[in-house]
Amino acid sequence: MVDTDLLYTQDYRVRAYEIDAQQRMTVPALSRLMQEAALQNVIQIGMSYWDLEPHHISWVLTRQQIEVKRLPDLNEPIRIHTYPAGFLRAFALRDFWVETQEGEPIAQSASTWLLMDTRTRRMANPPDFVLAFNERMPPREQCLPRISGQLEKLKATDYQEDYTVHWHDLDFNQHLNNTLYIQWMLDPVPAAVLAERQLAFLDIEYRAEGQLADALQSEVQEIEPGAYCHRIFRPADGKVLANAYTRWQY
Amino acid sequence: MVDTDLLYTQDYRVRAYEIDAQQRMTVPALSRLMQEAALQNVIQIGMSYWDLEPHHISWVLTRQQIEVKRLPDLNEPIRIHTYPAGFLRAFALRDFWVETQEGEPIAQSASTWLLMDTRTRRMANPPDFVLAFNERMPPREQCLPRISGQLEKLKATDYQEDYTVHWHDLDFNQHLNNTLYIQWMLDPVPAAVLAERQLAFLDIEYRAEGQLADALQSEVQEIEPGAYCHRIFRPADGKVLANAYTRWQY
Repeated sequence: MVDTDLLYTQDYRVRAYEIDAQQRMTVPALSRLMQEAALQNVIQIGMSYWDLEPHHISWVLTRQQIEVKRLPDLNEPIRIHTYPAGFLRAFALRDFWVETQEGEPIAQSASTWLLMDTRTRRMANPPDFVLAFNERMPPREQCLPRISGQLEKLKATDYQEDYTVHWHDLDFNQHLNNTLYIQWMLDPVPAAVLAERQLAFLDIEYRAEGQLADALQSEVQEIEPGAYCHRIFRPADGKVLANAYTRWQY
Repeated sequence: MVDTDLLYTQDYRVRAYEIDAQQRMTVPALSRLMQEAALQNVIQIGMSYWDLEPHHISWVLTRQQIEVKRLPDLNEPIRIHTYPAGFLRAFALRDFWVETQEGEPIAQSASTWLLMDTRTRRMANPPDFVLAFNERMPPREQCLPRISGQLEKLKATDYQEDYTVHWHDLDFNQHLNNTLYIQWMLDPVPAAVLAERQLAFLDIEYRAEGQLADALQSEVQEIEPGAYCHRIFRPADGKVLANAYTRWQY
């Protein structure tokens, strides 16, 4: 594992509400567990939502790439490692490694976050007590590689599902839970693909927060066999809340 | 605890995706963990969905009463006990006790299940190998009390939310996940009630299964201050999928 005292490691078992009809963990369920590990990590090191609240700043997830090697089965024990992986200009990086207890890789994820000023709703520069963590982070070459550059945008809608943001879709911060973006983006993919293929790669770019009672559209375009563009769109103000790209195993 | 070798006990910690803005576990999240414990219990004793599949029978939840004393906080360790609590004619009973690790009661739940013949979709009489478990179940007087009788029906709609059943709303058996019935029934309750009061009692009656692409309405009527009738309705065939009653602490 990486060389940092900021590493957080936790064991989980795949629960019944996390699996599909093939008894494999779903990708939204896997992303929820990664978020859970990240939250425990920031609580542990004193950089959580609640630690930052008095400073009027908050972490916002802006991009996440998830590479899936194999989806684990019901009751399978899995282990998640996560750590802050350095700063890139105003952005903070975080990595996730998901593996079996024997060390077989299951999934990896590189994520990018920014600090938002909760009064102005604008990007905030990381204050000194946040930047000070940089010294304790692992060397760059031990961290996961990242894909930069723009995501391809959806140009036509092959499949669509509609959503309203309900009370239980909100996170503790009263915004649409960011793991539901992933779930809602995958839902419109044809059921035969969801049931029979496995998602191999997901790249998601978060652009705006969803609020209670928002009416949203989740749109999907098949750009080549086994590869899709996705977006979550809010017709009321024409905003794109998130874009994504997925690639599926044949 | 009750006197039976069929008892299953498991410890959990409240996760970030299980809490609301008050940092308290939501009732849908609590009901999901109870279902999880029930599934592990039937796997352990050899009566799970997968054990019954070759016999063309399956468990169907028909009613559940949940009494909530206190909702636990983020990261709070909780313990769930569950066991089969006897037969009542063709119905099988199951109890849940949720408590802190020091034994402080958090919630209790009495549930009722029936066996369905998966070929005819009708109620099946429990076969001998299922009835044989009766000898190992706890004495009736150790089990939770149950409320029988009809649930009051919703007569007018004060609040409504609409849903479509999407892929990730299905359980491993390809039906609308029964814990989502509870979530969807609570969503239309005014946000001020959801945010500031605590659900004290829920009584839900399951009547029909939800399928992929179903359009459903979740309707709520306030029958007296702090008490509501709920139903999930499918306009396409006029079916009520579930009725419920909730009472909230002032």
